[in-house]
Amino acid sequence: MLALTWDGRAVRLSERARPGIRPDRAIVRVRLAGICNTDLEIMKGYMGFRGTLGHEFVGIVDEGPPAWRGRRVVGEINFACGTCPACRTHLGRHCASRQVMGILDADGSFAEFVVLPIANLHAVPDAVPDEAAVFTEPLAAAFEILEQVTVQPGEACTVLGDGKLGLLVAQVLHQAGARVLAVGAHPEKLAILRRCGIATTLRDDWSHELAEIVVEATGSAAGFAMALSATRPRGRLVLKSTVAASGAVDLAPVVINEITVVGSRCGPFAPALRALRQGTVDVRSLISARFPLADGIRALHHAAERGVVKVLLDCGT
Amino acid sequence: MLALTWDGRAVRLSERARPGIRPDRAIVRVRLAGICNTDLEIMKGYMGFRGTLGHEFVGIVDEGPPAWRGRRVVGEINFACGTCPACRTHLGRHCASRQVMGILDADGSFAEFVVLPIANLHAVPDAVPDEAAVFTEPLAAAFEILEQVTVQPGEACTVLGDGKLGLLVAQVLHQAGARVLAVGAHPEKLAILRRCGIATTLRDDWSHELAEIVVEATGSAAGFAMALSATRPRGRLVLKSTVAASGAVDLAPVVINEITVVGSRCGPFAPALRALRQGTVDVRSLISARFPLADGIRALHHAAERGVVKVLLDCGT
Repeated sequence: MLALTWDGRAVRLSERARPGIRPDRAIVRVRLAGICNTDLEIMKGYMGFRGTLGHEFVGIVDEGPPAWRGRRVVGEINFACGTCPACRTHLGRHCASRQVMGILDADGSFAEFVVLPIANLHAVPDAVPDEAAVFTEPLAAAFEILEQVTVQPGEACTVLGDGKLGLLVAQVLHQAGARVLAVGAHPEKLAILRRCGIATTLRDDWSHELAEIVVEATGSAAGFAMALSATRPRGRLVLKSTVAASGAVDLAPVVINEITVVGSRCGPFAPALRALRQGTVDVRSLISARFPLADGIRALHHAAERGVVKVLLDCGT
Repeated sequence: MLALTWDGRAVRLSERARPGIRPDRAIVRVRLAGICNTDLEIMKGYMGFRGTLGHEFVGIVDEGPPAWRGRRVVGEINFACGTCPACRTHLGRHCASRQVMGILDADGSFAEFVVLPIANLHAVPDAVPDEAAVFTEPLAAAFEILEQVTVQPGEACTVLGDGKLGLLVAQVLHQAGARVLAVGAHPEKLAILRRCGIATTLRDDWSHELAEIVVEATGSAAGFAMALSATRPRGRLVLKSTVAASGAVDLAPVVINEITVVGSRCGPFAPALRALRQGTVDVRSLISARFPLADGIRALHHAAERGVVKVLLDCGT
């Protein structure tokens, strides 16, 4: 089968063996996959990953239990052991011996087929087209914030960053009742949010008014300090990006202003699929381009360009 | 009056004018004051403070409203404006225009008299001797953790640091029902906690077992990374020290393990005074030495020595 792989130095389009089946696994024929910033970070060395890239997808179960075969699915990306203390307390996403699709010790979805645990499958409602279903995983990462932070109606919430994740986070918090201000650098991206009724401002025009909740979704090394300066005393700063977390940062204001910093990663698929079915989050406006898998290398380069939001890969043959 | 002052370069014992009264203030004749690590940090440049040092004290109201005159008191150290948004939402400790006794734009308690807002006074119950009452402020800082973090009975909680604050934090969390492990570098300090029934380990013998709650109270630049490595996924890391927060730290594990980092500073006096009255926290074992105010410079140097816990200043004439 065709697959887009990273060997530690270069990305290649290559013929690879179709993955083998195991009793607890399903093989999914990928229809559509999405390129995430994490894929681009992996190509800069993040996680030291080697193998087939990609973790966002929608597809059809090709092999697995009869009850699943032929169903259209999306899949959670953390493959948990199911027996360790984290797994026993419903924290499988934090299983210490997990593999993560396309990120850690497991091949990803930029291929004709991807294999994953049956426990990770979620059926896609008929009302959700592939172009929306492929956003389930990043939308779940946005919903993760609501699992971690209580949002009061009308609470001031600043979302920093108008990239793929920032646009989803702003919409999820807006739907949850927060008074969202999205801060970005791209008028055309912010326009997507304004059409949803969300207040936006260009970073250069931003008044830096303090908010109760600030979400760092810039994916830039300067993001954390900027977010910290915009969080009111006793407020909460949600950190969505490992990139923003990797620079040298001064945490003294965290202590002095008693800020709560909440690290936030993968999230729950159920509310994401519900929002897609109900159409309460606009994901299709985020699609910038669509490439066949055979043009995957070009697609990855395009995804890294300024102003580009979501790039999709058609993996169906 | 005699006062121990910091002029930005040196600490001096000098004769200063007795503070003047204002309608909303009280003048307290200081009986006993305590030396905190923050005082030692100020002498390294922290906060750029100039003036009389000190913010821990117990004394007798000398001037002020008749209802307060002659009463034995302790006092909260943040002088709030009372009218700004923070003050209106009971967050006076975070008033943006606050002064802080002995730390920011207000003279401190290492003197014969100290002036503070009447609203900041707390009467000391007769059953609490001066030697215990002088611990109210740092003990309140330990109780602040319970205002910010929900502690479940039996929850694993590691306290890093066996200094003044760490010894109080470990006791407060133990009283709150947590399963505390105190990690320190001084057998004689850890022995104080073991007498309270708290498990302890020397840092070099520590197994680094993950805990649900980790409190960073080492006051060392390496403290944050050590605390992060000891916090389980989705756990909470309470950061009590600005020193530990000032180094270059990698926050990526905060995101990947979805840690919640809670900055924690000053706390509520009421539960601290209650604990001192009930004798549920052993503070008197923490007293390493007691000096007259006239020997204040020697006292500050002694407080900075390894192995020394709390040094008190007798400020009564």
